[in-house]
Amino acid sequence: MTDILNGYAATAPGALLAPFQFTRRHPRIDDVVIEIEYCGVCHSDLHQVHNDWGNTRYPLVPGHEIIGRVIDVGATVTRFKAGDIVGVGCLVDSCGDCSPCCEGEEQYCLNKPTPTYNGVDRHDGRPTYGGYSERIIVSEKFVLRIPDGLDPKAAAPLLCAGITSYSPLRRWNIGRGHKVAVVGLGGLGHMGLKFAKAMGAEVTLITRSAGKEQEARRLGADHVLVSSDLAQIGLAAGNFDLVLDTIPTPHDLNPYLSTLRLNGTLVLVGLIGPIAPAVHSGLLVTGRRSIAGSAIGGVEQMQEMLDFCAAHDINCDVEMIRIQDINRAYERLLKSDVRYRFVIDMESLKSRPAD
Amino acid sequence: MTDILNGYAATAPGALLAPFQFTRRHPRIDDVVIEIEYCGVCHSDLHQVHNDWGNTRYPLVPGHEIIGRVIDVGATVTRFKAGDIVGVGCLVDSCGDCSPCCEGEEQYCLNKPTPTYNGVDRHDGRPTYGGYSERIIVSEKFVLRIPDGLDPKAAAPLLCAGITSYSPLRRWNIGRGHKVAVVGLGGLGHMGLKFAKAMGAEVTLITRSAGKEQEARRLGADHVLVSSDLAQIGLAAGNFDLVLDTIPTPHDLNPYLSTLRLNGTLVLVGLIGPIAPAVHSGLLVTGRRSIAGSAIGGVEQMQEMLDFCAAHDINCDVEMIRIQDINRAYERLLKSDVRYRFVIDMESLKSRPAD
Ligand SMILES: [Zn+2]
Ligand SMILES: [Zn+2]
Ligand SMILES: [Zn+2]
Ligand SMILES: [Zn+2]
Repeated sequence: MTDILNGYAATAPGALLAPFQFTRRHPRIDDVVIEIEYCGVCHSDLHQVHNDWGNTRYPLVPGHEIIGRVIDVGATVTRFKAGDIVGVGCLVDSCGDCSPCCEGEEQYCLNKPTPTYNGVDRHDGRPTYGGYSERIIVSEKFVLRIPDGLDPKAAAPLLCAGITSYSPLRRWNIGRGHKVAVVGLGGLGHMGLKFAKAMGAEVTLITRSAGKEQEARRLGADHVLVSSDLAQIGLAAGNFDLVLDTIPTPHDLNPYLSTLRLNGTLVLVGLIGPIAPAVHSGLLVTGRRSIAGSAIGGVEQMQEMLDFCAAHDINCDVEMIRIQDINRAYERLLKSDVRYRFVIDMESLKSRPAD
Repeated sequence: MTDILNGYAATAPGALLAPFQFTRRHPRIDDVVIEIEYCGVCHSDLHQVHNDWGNTRYPLVPGHEIIGRVIDVGATVTRFKAGDIVGVGCLVDSCGDCSPCCEGEEQYCLNKPTPTYNGVDRHDGRPTYGGYSERIIVSEKFVLRIPDGLDPKAAAPLLCAGITSYSPLRRWNIGRGHKVAVVGLGGLGHMGLKFAKAMGAEVTLITRSAGKEQEARRLGADHVLVSSDLAQIGLAAGNFDLVLDTIPTPHDLNPYLSTLRLNGTLVLVGLIGPIAPAVHSGLLVTGRRSIAGSAIGGVEQMQEMLDFCAAHDINCDVEMIRIQDINRAYERLLKSDVRYRFVIDMESLKSRPAD
């Protein structure tokens, strides 16, 4: 096992992803060394490659929906051993001391959690590199057990798209007797339908375009509302306990707010910038409605989500690609041309480019 | 007892309030007939007089913070008898059938609750007239018992300003160990400070102008933050469980949102129109923060609030006026020149104008 790792990286804004060699730290006593088998492709990967958020450090090795096999563990590691199938999500560390960390909400760490890529390791100051690579080395605490019942390649997107949809449904105690609407049918939205249904809710997909009824029903929706049809939205006024809004771009929240019943909450999971057009305060005050936000989920909840998926036979719908096709996949992602998540088979990394 | 009642009404937009004679319905079997002793002056009164919301029906007799003495009850009334001191708030009826009504949240009645004035009675179709008058006739269900320990004249504003501040503190389970910020020191804000303190929270007043420390502490605040001082707001980042925002005009919510800790909620109790400038979605997502709205409170909770006030020796700080001075009081209200609520001594209605 050499120290030089193969991966794919972007080396400048606008550059295509290309083969890249790099090193990772020597394993620490609490580290798990993972040979990566699959890595999901998240919209964030694309944003970071393009430096859309202005904070990208190049070279950038993306990927935070990682599934792999343990090949080595540090001396203090107790929960994993060589051969285990494990997962790594968006975070690989946090301060461990602040109140969110102490509450198991590492994603809200007040001292900034360490992202799986485009971050800086808290201990050695080295850049973090993501899952578009052969191996990753992660502190035991941030490694997830993949239950036997889950297909590992379809489980990869659970580690970001999955937990992002799952966490708010749990936070707002969704279950039998609740009516949940999921806005948007992408990687997050399709998981939102599956989770809300499995939790016992009556589930509605709200989508911009007609013609998704059959597909939505297959994924767990009981009803489909077309958001461009104001009459349909009007009929749904005061209907939902929770609206899970997965649209990743700026949009008008007011029509969705109107569909909330008394005490209902609209949860944003996308960073959509300033909320425009303006939200009308009357929609909040006159029905005691809320707008909330939610970001991924803590480590403990991620494990709970993976176990929930195994128990309920839930997986992501994925399209497998080779790492050599990643730039084409990004193009298709920009057009939402994927059902519902690309996953890279990292075995392809071993092929020579000409293969 | 004649059927002709004296009151004060506005008869057209822009007109001053002036003496007005009118009739009310004959009491129904579930009605309580109340001789009005005190009536608080709410900002809504002024908005309705000016037709600011475009829905005013003239002549308008304002007043929905009503304290009086029962002088007669209908055959089926069991909870009240002649001589009782009672209160009437913003609502005098609701459908009684919809899910909010069944949950004791009549203020969110899906079939529109009947307002104490500027409404239409659900049974006889007659206009409703408020508390700037001699007597009012209200269905038992919407009449509140005023506990012995409360000073009736200072209790009047509890029926709108009080319940509006109390209800969200209860809804969000505020108690010992919580940090609450109250934004704005008006009729609602000063009650918010008193309630939050009595519930056991650590209480901060956020106000635009410096120099209110002493007054705020007298009302229950442990700390005072000046919102125009960005450094002070910055130091409070991630601090509060609940921000009770009582500002009744459009304003920037972002600085207040930043002061919320993980899972914190900013509650709007004012109808401030479209929320501008835009709220930044990142403030919601990265701390799982919420913006919610809240409107007055249900009948049962109003009674709970009145009993809470008696138990904790809480009252509004009021400035008593005569009905003949109501137009001057409105002018002062527009300049926030009142600590903290005008209450009309309705005894003054019996004086001849020349008195
Ligand atoms: Zn992601
Ligand atoms: Zn932390
Ligand atoms: Zn009022
Ligand atoms: Zn109702």
